[in-house]
Amino acid sequence: MSRRKTILVVGGVAAGTSAAAKAKRTNPDCEVVLFEKGADISYGTCSMPYYISDIVRNPTDLVLYTARQFEQEKGVTVRIHHEAFRIEPYKKLLHLRDHERNRDVAFRYDKLIIATGASARTDGLPVDGAPNVFFLKSLSDAVRIKNFLEQQKPRKALIVGGGFIGMEMAEAFARHGLEIDVLDKAERPMARLEKESSRLVLAELHKHQVRFHGGSDIDRIERGGPGIGRIDTRTRIFEPDLVLFALGFRPNTDFLKGTLTLADNGAIVVNQKQETSRDHIYAAGACAEVRDLITNRNIYFPLASTASKTGRVAGENAAGGRTSFNGVVRTSAVKIFDLQVAHTGLSSEEAKALGFTVLTDTTESWSRPKYYPDRAQTSVSLIVDRRSRRLLGADVLSSQDAAMRVNVLSTALLNRMTIDEISQLDLMYSPPFSSVWDPILVAANSTINQLRK
Amino acid sequence: MSRRKTILVVGGVAAGTSAAAKAKRTNPDCEVVLFEKGADISYGTCSMPYYISDIVRNPTDLVLYTARQFEQEKGVTVRIHHEAFRIEPYKKLLHLRDHERNRDVAFRYDKLIIATGASARTDGLPVDGAPNVFFLKSLSDAVRIKNFLEQQKPRKALIVGGGFIGMEMAEAFARHGLEIDVLDKAERPMARLEKESSRLVLAELHKHQVRFHGGSDIDRIERGGPGIGRIDTRTRIFEPDLVLFALGFRPNTDFLKGTLTLADNGAIVVNQKQETSRDHIYAAGACAEVRDLITNRNIYFPLASTASKTGRVAGENAAGGRTSFNGVVRTSAVKIFDLQVAHTGLSSEEAKALGFTVLTDTTESWSRPKYYPDRAQTSVSLIVDRRSRRLLGADVLSSQDAAMRVNVLSTALLNRMTIDEISQLDLMYSPPFSSVWDPILVAANSTINQLRK
Repeated sequence: MSRRKTILVVGGVAAGTSAAAKAKRTNPDCEVVLFEKGADISYGTCSMPYYISDIVRNPTDLVLYTARQFEQEKGVTVRIHHEAFRIEPYKKLLHLRDHERNRDVAFRYDKLIIATGASARTDGLPVDGAPNVFFLKSLSDAVRIKNFLEQQKPRKALIVGGGFIGMEMAEAFARHGLEIDVLDKAERPMARLEKESSRLVLAELHKHQVRFHGGSDIDRIERGGPGIGRIDTRTRIFEPDLVLFALGFRPNTDFLKGTLTLADNGAIVVNQKQETSRDHIYAAGACAEVRDLITNRNIYFPLASTASKTGRVAGENAAGGRTSFNGVVRTSAVKIFDLQVAHTGLSSEEAKALGFTVLTDTTESWSRPKYYPDRAQTSVSLIVDRRSRRLLGADVLSSQDAAMRVNVLSTALLNRMTIDEISQLDLMYSPPFSSVWDPILVAANSTINQLRK
Repeated sequence: MSRRKTILVVGGVAAGTSAAAKAKRTNPDCEVVLFEKGADISYGTCSMPYYISDIVRNPTDLVLYTARQFEQEKGVTVRIHHEAFRIEPYKKLLHLRDHERNRDVAFRYDKLIIATGASARTDGLPVDGAPNVFFLKSLSDAVRIKNFLEQQKPRKALIVGGGFIGMEMAEAFARHGLEIDVLDKAERPMARLEKESSRLVLAELHKHQVRFHGGSDIDRIERGGPGIGRIDTRTRIFEPDLVLFALGFRPNTDFLKGTLTLADNGAIVVNQKQETSRDHIYAAGACAEVRDLITNRNIYFPLASTASKTGRVAGENAAGGRTSFNGVVRTSAVKIFDLQVAHTGLSSEEAKALGFTVLTDTTESWSRPKYYPDRAQTSVSLIVDRRSRRLLGADVLSSQDAAMRVNVLSTALLNRMTIDEISQLDLMYSPPFSSVWDPILVAANSTINQLRK
């Protein structure tokens, strides 16, 4: 009888656990081993702000499977505190540091799946080791923030970065009663949004006493005791008790340089089967690129949902399956206090840069009939190509159902629908749930009128 | 100078007002006259149950435009209490009864739009004139029910018909503290749903003490005083204080027999430009058929949203435009107490009858992450063609976001997506709004697994 096939998976959060479980399910005869450099696997990264804000009470609530549970339920061997540092592809050898036993180990693989994820970017700022400086990437980061909030009772928070995590954390800190400033190099929060959308985000922040300082570069960082005491921009001085850096992510791929083809930002280049540039090595999740289905180019767009999906595909293919992950249209949603902010596709700026002749049209309409008591204004911005009349992207913002509505536009984008086709979508109507003219249809009709001008 | 073009619109609710307003907007030089046989125009038919249940307080809140407002804002002449009774197409003459002045009048048209809507079906039951017998079609029907509830304080309601309106009215009556029985000839409530979905509807009715009696034909109706005192089925006797017949609708087209081509049920046959069998005559809304985009056949599916859309198309074309309404995939949603019940496309029974080799797969999954406090089980039934793997229809039921989620599946249906393509939809993920694996993706993956068996 031939030796059992061995599939090694490096990284144990969204992509890694999806890959390992799917590989074992696809071919139960395989031996599947999952390595994680930290102490936890399989936790809900995107839910960490809600743990910090006390909506989710315990850090263990965020853990979908402990290592033990995952081994028992999925039939996968799990090794925590194991950090990969080298691959020898010709020998099919994976080298790892076992941090628990302080020794190096090597494992032979038939197929290897890289799912090492990403780290919070620091952009070269001298912030390491300061006890009041935080990032939010791993479960231990989240626990550290929550402990600091509870034990140190900080009053003033400075958030550097006005993207998803900066916005979610503004809400989380506000729930703890902190005074909050947000800095960003960009002029607007959530800078991929249309200007009209950013205006609504700003108004929501303002309503909740969060100060946003756009166009701000950090000039100087001053220690105060062991921590950071003061941060200066060209025009302002901040003296926060707590600083959160939310500058985005960089893929954890340093150890792969020279082994796999990496993009400029270090993300692993993969095809739609999640295959890397080396035979027998797959990659998935936030360490890898993903195909943008609007431009048909690879992009770096690290989201947990994509990580799970690409992990699943990598796992199935490594175990002998034949499947693929087509790609994304960059659909996303974020809750900023009472506002749901959702986006899909290209922004108008990106579309123009790609050579499209762009029309952007923003409408405001009611989520439900005017006479229905529980309803909300809904802002829909549609970005269309004037020539082909194709939808290229959309923002949806509302305190009600904006996140759900963007999924319709995402599905329309994937199908390369024109604005005329979108205006004829058969969307449900029932007063507790929608207006006769759904905000998407109102927006489509308005855009058609704009195109006539 | 040539005479101004005259567009007459018969019927003043959803389709008629949409048609008239759009005609005038398309060609402001036209004279547009809107005739309505009742006293009210432009009201939210679908919101009437919410007026009866006191969620909407006043009947006037349901009126989007009074006749006067509509004339002033839209530039359309409105004549209420005018009922059409004959058309002379060769003379381009419309004959109406002016009920206010008790006289017949005739108007010449260049283009005529029929938007006479539908009436509640009585199916030959001898129920006319009984003061405790109700239908729900017009605003005056709704006012009559609410007055009866408030003045007569009935204790027991019998609803004949377990479809949309029967279900919505069960909730409305329950809010008034009534004891409720629902009769239906079909074995299950909402009989177009899959069996698994109907089971959830039944459980919801049961939870709210509404008794559903499926497979029930009315054997005998007995008067008690001026009203109905007793209704017998083969196996049961009901002695309600109030009876609501919710048996569906029949198009108001009796006066058109011999003039226009009508379907078997009396609905006006139209093409996608909303043109009837006669030149210069258009029809829209619940008096007309509509194209089913899955089967490419005309069907009768009277909904307010379709009425508004087809009215708009009829109005634009009558005024010289060139547009069309493609059709529907029968997307609908209804709130039954705390349950959102949504459907799109074919049922598995309909699909089988059309010759498809059908697989139906029902999954239950969470609307949001397991650790997020505010979440709900979501049942998704997907109906697919085994051969082409194309989606044919879907039910979505949940106390959370089911209505919104069905819109994604409706958009997928319109684009004739396969289950494999649906499993790769790029749906947003954010813990306050969805799971990493949206219930639609969970359902699609499960269906793909079922197809392998």
